[in-house]
Amino acid sequence: VNPDLASERQTPSFSVEKLTALLDGGEENTWVRRAVVEAIESDPVFSRENQYFQSQNEKYEAAVRKAVHLQKKMHEMGWTENGPEFKYIYRALSGEVAFLLHTIFMRSISVLGSDKQIAKWIPLAMQYQLIGSYAQTELGHGTYLQGLETTAVFDITTQEFILNTPQMSAMKWWPGDMGRSATHTVVFAQLYVQGKCYGVHPFIVQIRSLWDHSLCPGITAGDIGPKMSFEHIDNGYLMLQNVRVSRENMLSKFCEVQPDGTYVRRGSQQINYFTMTAVRVALISQEAVIPLMKACTIAIRYSVVRRQSKLKPGEEEAKILDFQTQQEKLLPHLAAAYAFHFINNYLQELFDRGYEEIQRENFNMLPELHAFSSGFKAMVTQYCASAVEVCLRACGGHGYSLLSGLPSLCTRILASCIYEGENTILFLQTARFLIKCFMAASAGHPVPPSVTYLAAVKPGKCPAKNKFDFLSPDIYTQAYQHAAVRLISSTAAKLQELIQSGVKKHDAWNECTVQLVQAVKAHCHYITVKNFAETVERLETKGGIQKIMKHLCDLFALHGIFSNAGVFLHNGYISGAQMDMVTASYLDLLAVIRKDAVPLVDAFDFTDKTLNSALGSYDGQVYQRLYEWAQKSPTNTQTNPAYERYLKPLLHKKLSKL
Amino acid sequence: VNPDLASERQTPSFSVEKLTALLDGGEENTWVRRAVVEAIESDPVFSRENQYFQSQNEKYEAAVRKAVHLQKKMHEMGWTENGPEFKYIYRALSGEVAFLLHTIFMRSISVLGSDKQIAKWIPLAMQYQLIGSYAQTELGHGTYLQGLETTAVFDITTQEFILNTPQMSAMKWWPGDMGRSATHTVVFAQLYVQGKCYGVHPFIVQIRSLWDHSLCPGITAGDIGPKMSFEHIDNGYLMLQNVRVSRENMLSKFCEVQPDGTYVRRGSQQINYFTMTAVRVALISQEAVIPLMKACTIAIRYSVVRRQSKLKPGEEEAKILDFQTQQEKLLPHLAAAYAFHFINNYLQELFDRGYEEIQRENFNMLPELHAFSSGFKAMVTQYCASAVEVCLRACGGHGYSLLSGLPSLCTRILASCIYEGENTILFLQTARFLIKCFMAASAGHPVPPSVTYLAAVKPGKCPAKNKFDFLSPDIYTQAYQHAAVRLISSTAAKLQELIQSGVKKHDAWNECTVQLVQAVKAHCHYITVKNFAETVERLETKGGIQKIMKHLCDLFALHGIFSNAGVFLHNGYISGAQMDMVTASYLDLLAVIRKDAVPLVDAFDFTDKTLNSALGSYDGQVYQRLYEWAQKSPTNTQTNPAYERYLKPLLHKKLSKL
Repeated sequence: VNPDLASERQTPSFSVEKLTALLDGGEENTWVRRAVVEAIESDPVFSRENQYFQSQNEKYEAAVRKAVHLQKKMHEMGWTENGPEFKYIYRALSGEVAFLLHTIFMRSISVLGSDKQIAKWIPLAMQYQLIGSYAQTELGHGTYLQGLETTAVFDITTQEFILNTPQMSAMKWWPGDMGRSATHTVVFAQLYVQGKCYGVHPFIVQIRSLWDHSLCPGITAGDIGPKMSFEHIDNGYLMLQNVRVSRENMLSKFCEVQPDGTYVRRGSQQINYFTMTAVRVALISQEAVIPLMKACTIAIRYSVVRRQSKLKPGEEEAKILDFQTQQEKLLPHLAAAYAFHFINNYLQELFDRGYEEIQRENFNMLPELHAFSSGFKAMVTQYCASAVEVCLRACGGHGYSLLSGLPSLCTRILASCIYEGENTILFLQTARFLIKCFMAASAGHPVPPSVTYLAAVKPGKCPAKNKFDFLSPDIYTQAYQHAAVRLISSTAAKLQELIQSGVKKHDAWNECTVQLVQAVKAHCHYITVKNFAETVERLETKGGIQKIMKHLCDLFALHGIFSNAGVFLHNGYISGAQMDMVTASYLDLLAVIRKDAVPLVDAFDFTDKTLNSALGSYDGQVYQRLYEWAQKSPTNTQTNPAYERYLKPLLHKKLSKL
Repeated sequence: VNPDLASERQTPSFSVEKLTALLDGGEENTWVRRAVVEAIESDPVFSRENQYFQSQNEKYEAAVRKAVHLQKKMHEMGWTENGPEFKYIYRALSGEVAFLLHTIFMRSISVLGSDKQIAKWIPLAMQYQLIGSYAQTELGHGTYLQGLETTAVFDITTQEFILNTPQMSAMKWWPGDMGRSATHTVVFAQLYVQGKCYGVHPFIVQIRSLWDHSLCPGITAGDIGPKMSFEHIDNGYLMLQNVRVSRENMLSKFCEVQPDGTYVRRGSQQINYFTMTAVRVALISQEAVIPLMKACTIAIRYSVVRRQSKLKPGEEEAKILDFQTQQEKLLPHLAAAYAFHFINNYLQELFDRGYEEIQRENFNMLPELHAFSSGFKAMVTQYCASAVEVCLRACGGHGYSLLSGLPSLCTRILASCIYEGENTILFLQTARFLIKCFMAASAGHPVPPSVTYLAAVKPGKCPAKNKFDFLSPDIYTQAYQHAAVRLISSTAAKLQELIQSGVKKHDAWNECTVQLVQAVKAHCHYITVKNFAETVERLETKGGIQKIMKHLCDLFALHGIFSNAGVFLHNGYISGAQMDMVTASYLDLLAVIRKDAVPLVDAFDFTDKTLNSALGSYDGQVYQRLYEWAQKSPTNTQTNPAYERYLKPLLHKKLSKL
């Protein structure tokens, strides 16, 4: 181990093992997770060694190979979908595996299909006897589902649906696993029966032959080409020309077209939202928080190995983490990784409770769940995407090398701001909920517990007298609450004024959206700080865990105030003099957490293979690894035809040596 | 042309041609630029058609081919290095050409070499009879040049320098053109003569044979592997083991080792800074502002073609640029592109004046030039990098496709925050200058004209009474000035307090660096706003140019206040009520500029080939182009071995159709 890194681990102020167990939700989980990671990483099929040198085609092939092998592996290891190991598999694979959309294909059949449909399709899909995809998004239509153009017309004479892509913009575009793999897909199309449109419905459509994988009649399909990341996934396009599927292929748990053309709707379709909610909650951890934890691990370990410039004349060059500016880049994001880990736990619990209620046919929690999952998906992915980029930049030139592992984290996490609901649209969905709740609360009506605070507008000022007061969770949580209420109430007021002055409702809404997004962010930030503070409160004091988590909570909260100062200063709740106290405490905390920075990322417990980073390995052998890994690059292993073709004819041949 | 895009061009409030001429600095320049672009784009060797499908090796080969062909082309077209066409070539190639470091190799010989050295090396280099590189950065050493470890020991008996890489961290790492192309390089090494170290000096070293391109004795060199972008460049590594070069190979305009070992230094070395200054100023336009202009063009054109959700019930789906949130993402960055174009002109003039002075052997302007080029390089690249990413995200899923052209802009511009001086370090260099000037100005000493404002601290409050007052350049420029002075003076005060309380100078400096960076940003922001306002003042009123530029200037200024509200609210210079006026005027401006958004990007005058974007073409045929371009992807043109290998054995063979 590099001595500069080793020295950072000598006197942590807390027990790293205990913190890891806390993050895992118990020591038992830590053992299960480690066992899964060990089993996956010791299997050469799952190797990511050449990841940074592969073409899109090579990455796709590797991902398919892994997906197929994973089935065997699970059987071999005795891992089941309900077992404790299951949730760690995707993490252990770093998500580089095909057929994610195949599982969404299965889930949509399970949720939206009749018992007969489930019995027919699920067993085949489980064994990869067919490969499914999920074809919703179109070239010209994304989040706004009602705008989808694909049509499914019921032909009563043959008892079939005829599916068509009426024009270019209606082509399905982006569905994963569809470009080169899928044999089947669930197609979302506007249902027409006897000339009447019944809106968007899901249909199972076969697109490729099971025999030779050739495209089925009427099907045009292929890959949409290169993307910023996710090269291992074959996102595809699909055009349908008079493709006929039987009446039984419309997923019919909630709606059905009967043989005589009668359209029947039964049960609640609200459950659909719940599936989306589930996906959004699940991705927060996998696609945003874990990548941020990885980026922090890499950047912080590198920042104690890297030395640059002298802090004190006459001494050797300093570890870059000893510069205040470097601490300010990395440590607040480390604190955020913890904050988001805890808010994710909170969401997960809320979600589990909601699921129980739904099983009792009580759908009351759905609006709150939808608002929470939307707002936090948007807030956390946006924050983590910026933070990962900061980690990359904080590693200077070497961070920019793919071998650092940071560029691939950075380009991948960016997508999380777009998929499963573009973030701005999600923020505005949460805004609708908050405005509605604010109005209700102001009128004295009951609102969900998470937003009761909206009714409790207290004017007042922040009571902090010195910089130490700002280390009190009550003080800063109150400040966040105050800011959120102010932004929500003032935007609600603007909205009402506009409407009262004669502006149409939808125009008024549009004119408030920039401020509504601000308000939702403030709300989510408040809930995150509050939840972090409450989590710290409940932690055991043993092993120094509570103390270090308290520091991180303070840092997260004060960083938010420092970097959004305007929100808190606006109506004088925090004065300029108090903001100076915030700044002082904030900068003090950087130096405090600096001491434990390495143990705090060690506690995330990523293996070197998981990080796959020349800069972030546990032993800190940064330069050695950069050099060794570079040797494997095709730029070194393949010949250089450019020399023969273009340079050789020019170079001064008379002088082999100048 | 897509009708939604065509309609945007029908009634611009200004003359697009006149604005283009303004940006080019005169109509004549527009013609020259167009001629260069036309000549380059009509030549198939310079085609970027397959750019998004190429591997690193293919991109490198294409870049070498282009570099070699460019020489022929220049000769053919009669373009010379001093001609008016020269400055447009790199832009026309979108920077995708090899041997940039070869030109830096030449420049360093021209600046640092003796007449004899220039006469020997430059003619060979001019004709690519050798390929040069510039080996400064080491694996373990970047910005802090004094820390370089490579050694050059003078051997008096053979009259040679012996160059060595003492350990892994001393390996040269990153130099462009060195991985696979260069035959020679300028190596920066610590000079030792008779046991005494004289610091870092430049030496010309041959690394590959001119005869067969094999590595020279004692040389280990290769490519550093894949990066986030710049795949066309062969950034390389270099290890030296007892490599001997003759005494004449040390660049000796300013220092020389005489045959008897006497070390002689002559003239000023300050000129070295000037070279770096020149590079930093040059890159602002090429690598930051132009990419931002491209990203704005793509995102804004796409945002009037893309329709999503209904703004008004019953109407068709709205152009996404009609949503306030989309305007708020894109239009301030469009304004920033103009602001930075004008500040770049300002810097260029300052630089030209400085160069004239230097030729008269007057070096007085160097500190100011250095501070300006550092601060603005950092500020503009950082802003543009974020802004390009916002443009990408604002295009939703399609922005994430490489075919949009946005990911490659995004990953490339990120590097500009790191190379030629990491931005934080650059900000802090400007901070040293500002603090020094502030102290001098406070003591009544003369300071350079750009910072005389530091002495003019007026307490006072912002006099604006209503939202229209914030459309007055005097009002907002004053606000920016006030904020900059406050941040600089308060940080200077903190620094002095710390020192007076006994904290050592370097520790005190470190404890102020987070705030110093804030202060420098405020200073640069102020100068940019002031320069924009002054530029608008000087513009001709014909063709509506001044009016639309005034709107953009207002938008840029108010966006900065809106998004950095804390800086202005802190000491009450702007009150909460005034901040609401700022917000109101800011949001009003979005709607005003929205109308001219497309003509404003059309004026940048990028050809479709330059943009190379399926989303951003002049005709707006977005979906057609995405589909056609995807067909050319290797994921569609190559066979799918994953099917044969992994899927075929699994798929349900008994049922070719389910």
